[in-house]
Amino acid sequence: MSFTLHGTGVSQGIAIGRAHLASHASLEVAHYTIPESRVADEVARFKAAVKAARSELIAQRKNLPPSAPAELEAFLNVHLMILDDEILSRAPVQRIRSQRCNAEWALRTQMDALIAQFDEMENEYLRERRNDVVQVVERIMKALLGQPPAAVPAPPTAGEPMILVARDLSPADVMIYKQHQFSAFITDLGGATSHTAIVARSLGIPSIVALHHARQLIRENDLLIVDGTAGVVVVNPDKSILAEYELRRHQWELERQKLKRLKSARAVTLDGVPVELQANIELPEDVEQAKENGATGIGLFRSEFLFLNRDELPSEDEQFEAYRQVVRQMKGLPVTIRTLDLGADKHLNGAQRFSTNPALGLRAIRLCLAEPQMFRTQLRAILRASHYGRVRILLPMLSSLSELTQAMHMIEQAKRELADERVKFDPNVQVGGMIEVPAAALMLEAFLRRLHFLSIGTNDLIQYTLAIDRTDDTVAHLYDPLHPAVLYLVARVIRTANRAGVPVAVCGEMAGDVALTRLLLGFGLREFSMHPSNILAVKQQVLRTALSDIAGLTQKMLKVESHEKLLALLERLNA
Amino acid sequence: MSFTLHGTGVSQGIAIGRAHLASHASLEVAHYTIPESRVADEVARFKAAVKAARSELIAQRKNLPPSAPAELEAFLNVHLMILDDEILSRAPVQRIRSQRCNAEWALRTQMDALIAQFDEMENEYLRERRNDVVQVVERIMKALLGQPPAAVPAPPTAGEPMILVARDLSPADVMIYKQHQFSAFITDLGGATSHTAIVARSLGIPSIVALHHARQLIRENDLLIVDGTAGVVVVNPDKSILAEYELRRHQWELERQKLKRLKSARAVTLDGVPVELQANIELPEDVEQAKENGATGIGLFRSEFLFLNRDELPSEDEQFEAYRQVVRQMKGLPVTIRTLDLGADKHLNGAQRFSTNPALGLRAIRLCLAEPQMFRTQLRAILRASHYGRVRILLPMLSSLSELTQAMHMIEQAKRELADERVKFDPNVQVGGMIEVPAAALMLEAFLRRLHFLSIGTNDLIQYTLAIDRTDDTVAHLYDPLHPAVLYLVARVIRTANRAGVPVAVCGEMAGDVALTRLLLGFGLREFSMHPSNILAVKQQVLRTALSDIAGLTQKMLKVESHEKLLALLERLNA
Repeated sequence: MSFTLHGTGVSQGIAIGRAHLASHASLEVAHYTIPESRVADEVARFKAAVKAARSELIAQRKNLPPSAPAELEAFLNVHLMILDDEILSRAPVQRIRSQRCNAEWALRTQMDALIAQFDEMENEYLRERRNDVVQVVERIMKALLGQPPAAVPAPPTAGEPMILVARDLSPADVMIYKQHQFSAFITDLGGATSHTAIVARSLGIPSIVALHHARQLIRENDLLIVDGTAGVVVVNPDKSILAEYELRRHQWELERQKLKRLKSARAVTLDGVPVELQANIELPEDVEQAKENGATGIGLFRSEFLFLNRDELPSEDEQFEAYRQVVRQMKGLPVTIRTLDLGADKHLNGAQRFSTNPALGLRAIRLCLAEPQMFRTQLRAILRASHYGRVRILLPMLSSLSELTQAMHMIEQAKRELADERVKFDPNVQVGGMIEVPAAALMLEAFLRRLHFLSIGTNDLIQYTLAIDRTDDTVAHLYDPLHPAVLYLVARVIRTANRAGVPVAVCGEMAGDVALTRLLLGFGLREFSMHPSNILAVKQQVLRTALSDIAGLTQKMLKVESHEKLLALLERLNA
Repeated sequence: MSFTLHGTGVSQGIAIGRAHLASHASLEVAHYTIPESRVADEVARFKAAVKAARSELIAQRKNLPPSAPAELEAFLNVHLMILDDEILSRAPVQRIRSQRCNAEWALRTQMDALIAQFDEMENEYLRERRNDVVQVVERIMKALLGQPPAAVPAPPTAGEPMILVARDLSPADVMIYKQHQFSAFITDLGGATSHTAIVARSLGIPSIVALHHARQLIRENDLLIVDGTAGVVVVNPDKSILAEYELRRHQWELERQKLKRLKSARAVTLDGVPVELQANIELPEDVEQAKENGATGIGLFRSEFLFLNRDELPSEDEQFEAYRQVVRQMKGLPVTIRTLDLGADKHLNGAQRFSTNPALGLRAIRLCLAEPQMFRTQLRAILRASHYGRVRILLPMLSSLSELTQAMHMIEQAKRELADERVKFDPNVQVGGMIEVPAAALMLEAFLRRLHFLSIGTNDLIQYTLAIDRTDDTVAHLYDPLHPAVLYLVARVIRTANRAGVPVAVCGEMAGDVALTRLLLGFGLREFSMHPSNILAVKQQVLRTALSDIAGLTQKMLKVESHEKLLALLERLNA
């Protein structure tokens, strides 16, 4: 049967392939009595399954990529604790022995008993732990049933492209599925800022979320067309539809090929104004992708990867080697290393705190200034790397002048120490600041005079200006890069910096969104830093744009109050 | 022995009285063997203590004032669960029976065993629950030892004023101690924005926090001088010092008496410009205090009290009666009712969510628009009350025009319904908006044209502009009403509203701070709304001020970047 589903396209492109349903072990299990002689075997089988589930959890915890949110590890730890609790590890064994039932049934009945207890709890927090118990039980059950764990889907049939169909993808799922070769992701739940969406976009994999009942309606191996641009899934298409989409996919591929040819083209507007298109990277290995996409520098090298998922802080030498690796590979092109931005959604091991509002708490430069020894080590490592190329230091989350003064003082001190030790570094290394707190944007003049360059972090700037946490599903729809207050602040920062002759970049997601390229150019932006996968499309947009054509319209957009009018003007701008 | 301690004065004034140490049951307990014949009695004694502790917890939960933070109830629930767990309710009984030891010892050894287990846990969240166990054990221990529970201190000796000396006051403690007649609070821990500080200021009780070892150094019944203005505690002062402080306290009292005489004076500057000084209230009963202090209206009537600590939403009639009570008492003076502002630190029962950043989540107007039935009921109740006096509707947390449009639409709809039902209301009821999100301050012009009045919520505006949660101890020191970006936004909103002829008030804590009265007057503010206890002091400041003298200096303060220079100018301004 052929049918069509509509959802929210969150990553553009067209994919055609076979459905693979992310497996959730069915908890409908058989019940049978086993002979006395087999009880010991059944117990052993149960214990082996618990052991397998534990190994799987430990392996997942160990292999967390640096970019995994810190909650993930805490979450895996809780699951390990539940798994090791006797309510799951011992009670089912007793049931097997006393009732002479199969292990699945013993586990299932024990789970039912537990769930009943949880459901009676008045405390909401503890009640929520019920789901953790179910997830752990599912994991053991899967091992018992000899099913492969959810994390490792079956290999694709005969080289045909596979499309992952899931109810939702947790951060953990996404991190794991990311390693597999899916040609599209589609999920029942999620929004434009869900983890699925963010990862899919960065990988350039077509994706659709909020499809509601897709996972129930689609069966394993169904043929699917996923149009991530339109947000449409066609299930078991007939031949004419399939042919049409094959054509469209082909066109999409051609477009991507065309983009690839732009790799070494200079990014210049139609009226001859050059634009810098740089890359945001998270790991030294990402330099490869940055270079493949023709980045003219690293506009944002996040240094958190060195600090996550480990018990000890990285040494100065370890950091130095990681920074130098990137600096060398970039061969004289600028490498902007952002000092540690932990505390909001990522934490040092053991330092995870339970603040009520971590985004408004001890994070980034605030944390660095509160941990001067850690900060000093990082500054020394960056300075040492500066000897090998063109390094720039970027300070995150500045909100007051005193923070900047303290940070500058520490940089000077680190320089003096290195000079005393006769260690080489670039004495003229540039220091810039992230403009991502409204306070910094509003008192920009004071920062401008003390910094060599600025980088606007639009993600956080929007979050604080609108008081919206975009990862909070209940308000994510209110997160709006086109909010008049956001446009005002972004335009103001660019204009003020340009007038002062201080280089300014945008490194938040706005920089990688081709729909906003002309708007930002019109505001006067000449430096964009983004995920490497977006660089070529943004370059194409730059090459097609005449600044003289867009100046009037972009200024007009700064004066519009209504969202609808703004969207209409944006459409005209991009036409 | 006489000595002096230095801390942070958080509530001005001088108090002299006897120390009362907030009791923390000592966990150093005796160990003795009991005869077999007394085991049953000892078990009964233990059970009675558990029962007493449970009743105490239930009573505390039941008597939570509406202004108590929502976390408090969750916290009491966790304690009740721990109390009822067999690890505390049954295990000690077994110890009494098997070891024939006294109940205190059985409880103490069981606690030690538990704590050892908790300390081994890897999960930080669970490790923190260790402290909850200790607190519950302390509670049972107190009942066992026949001590009065911490919440009910011994009555003061022979009418002498008492000063509460505590290590720290939790929100729960503060709510409870607030009901007693202490003449000062002093604590080892805490900062200027701690719960102790906020409550003490609102009650006008001299208080000092961050005294470090006060609770160890001061003994019960020591004579104390507390100078909340200087942050100094003199313990067992000698006669000459005591006489000096008696004099100072007398002067302070005289000053307060003088302020009381200002009650019916009109608040007018020296150059004859009238200023509105209104009250912020949380409960209908607060109207009394507002009137005693000569408030010329209610500038902010928080409506949350009707919604907290209950299972069902308040009916339209119940809300109507509460609003009408205030409106009638104010006899034609304006009563500004803020629609529900829940979601950040206060939640509906059962609706408590675990958002990562509740301050950036579904709160205030966002929550109301997501719960239209609840919002509609409140709007109808407010409109009905408007028939009995001068009611104004205040919408909290506006950040986009679409929210305002939706809210306005719902108000019009409620009016139409009431008109159809022939229910009386003021058809010209004014609608205003809180300016507390940076976005609203930045696109003020759009809001101005659609609202009758504005109220600047400086607490939240500062929080979002600086990205600082002031209740987070790790960053509270960065929360700064004098941050140049904050002053810029506040001055900009006042100036823009004044030019448009739209009335604008400040209703955050800045309005009640006499150190900022002249600054705000200089920015053009003519309406202040504050805790009733601050009105007279602010009025005194208004009466002493000539606008013509301060204009130049306040404008200069908008151009200063350094905090030190700003403080120096503020001192000149207030001289």
